[in-house]
Amino acid sequence: MKIVVVGLGVIGGSFTMALKEAGYNDVYGIDTNEETLVKAKKLGLIKEGFTSGEEIVKDADLIIMSLYPRLVKKFITDNKDNFKDGAVITDATGIKKMFIGHIVEILPSNIDFVFGHPMAGREKKGIDFATSEVFKGANYILTPVDRNKEENLKLIEDLAYEIGFKRVKRINPEYHDEMIGFTSQLPHALAVALVNSDVEGRDTGSFIGDSYRDLTRIANINEDLWSELFLGNKENLLMSIQNFENELDKIKYAIKDNDIESLKQLFIKSTKRREKL
Amino acid sequence: MKIVVVGLGVIGGSFTMALKEAGYNDVYGIDTNEETLVKAKKLGLIKEGFTSGEEIVKDADLIIMSLYPRLVKKFITDNKDNFKDGAVITDATGIKKMFIGHIVEILPSNIDFVFGHPMAGREKKGIDFATSEVFKGANYILTPVDRNKEENLKLIEDLAYEIGFKRVKRINPEYHDEMIGFTSQLPHALAVALVNSDVEGRDTGSFIGDSYRDLTRIANINEDLWSELFLGNKENLLMSIQNFENELDKIKYAIKDNDIESLKQLFIKSTKRREKL
Repeated sequence: MKIVVVGLGVIGGSFTMALKEAGYNDVYGIDTNEETLVKAKKLGLIKEGFTSGEEIVKDADLIIMSLYPRLVKKFITDNKDNFKDGAVITDATGIKKMFIGHIVEILPSNIDFVFGHPMAGREKKGIDFATSEVFKGANYILTPVDRNKEENLKLIEDLAYEIGFKRVKRINPEYHDEMIGFTSQLPHALAVALVNSDVEGRDTGSFIGDSYRDLTRIANINEDLWSELFLGNKENLLMSIQNFENELDKIKYAIKDNDIESLKQLFIKSTKRREKL
Repeated sequence: MKIVVVGLGVIGGSFTMALKEAGYNDVYGIDTNEETLVKAKKLGLIKEGFTSGEEIVKDADLIIMSLYPRLVKKFITDNKDNFKDGAVITDATGIKKMFIGHIVEILPSNIDFVFGHPMAGREKKGIDFATSEVFKGANYILTPVDRNKEENLKLIEDLAYEIGFKRVKRINPEYHDEMIGFTSQLPHALAVALVNSDVEGRDTGSFIGDSYRDLTRIANINEDLWSELFLGNKENLLMSIQNFENELDKIKYAIKDNDIESLKQLFIKSTKRREKL
């Protein structure tokens, strides 16, 4: 099986590493950054690198897209006449419903796009921070669409387990976006707002413990990627923010009212829920 | 130097461990839980345990209070006739200004209370979760008051370094509370609100990655302790929440307006600030 990984950033690079470790060696890479291709080849992660799809896409049985959402769409458009008949494409995009709508519109009918979301990431970008370790024990989500062939869904599912994921779940794109709006996008919004709400010029570094460090790690955020993800899932994210604000209000009003009993109840609730995870 | 640690919970227990490792062996413990005292003695952390102060406090050169704020006050009141002349007391309380005001009112004049805040904690409670490891490399804050003797401030400062802290800073109680309201209390409020804002009955566990895990670790929270801490620093915490809400609003409105440029600027700002830490 000839595999092409498109976009050798931190996630695409991690895919090439995990594929290598799983014994796949007919793997090629596409990236607009030539330096990245040289690095990937030197590390033995790809057989050959390309700055565009034309040449290599023709022979690819499986294409793993690890690009920003709008660039996935552009790649499909640019290569719609290049894909091999019956090729399988999958992705690593963190939003699904709107994104799938855009892709399905332009996808050639002889290509099967299995939409996926490996729930593994790092707050750094670029192949230098790639590591197959982030996949180990992580969750992988597939969001099947009507036109997907079961054998191709199975192909990606098996591959996910082979490269280290612990659990692969199939759900519909709407539910994916609702859940991800809460478990991934909302935490990123909170971390960004927390760091940005610091008063300029304070010696904050002398007053931080593990809690501030943990809650702000993901405030180090890829602005091009996450601005697309937020806007590509806006209704769900806004709903999650609203629910969060309602809960923060409860804490705020309990403090204002010196209502120690209500505060304790809110803490008991969060403790119980966190322990269940 | 005879040392008494009052309250052998997760922090007090960690103190006895760190003291032992630093070579102090004339260490005693006070706790209302007899089982805790037996454990501490079995582990060789204390020479002897007591369920009240009367007997042992008379001989103590240094008393380390690791109790909830209102219990520190109660202990001082209950033992005001028991303290040895010239004894030094220190604490681990996470709020200072209002707390110090309450203590100074009732403290005998021949006792020197060096108010301190070891910035190390765990989301678990009790001696079973105590470990000297949490002190290693952490920050320690002293908030001197006029009546403190320099030699006693120095005593606690030196001890902090001996038991593993990396940096000891002296600041005034007002600034302590302002900073802690932001770096410690606000993150705890956000973590609690985040967990509590989940919609009941969803299979959230299948959709979490490191970000949700990191941001909610401290939602597992000791309700008795933290309700006191929040209410003992309410003005600063409410101000921090307000500043946070203003920043979250900026993200929210950028999403509502599909304003990708503003979103990117907010992300660039948080990334720069986080990298500086």
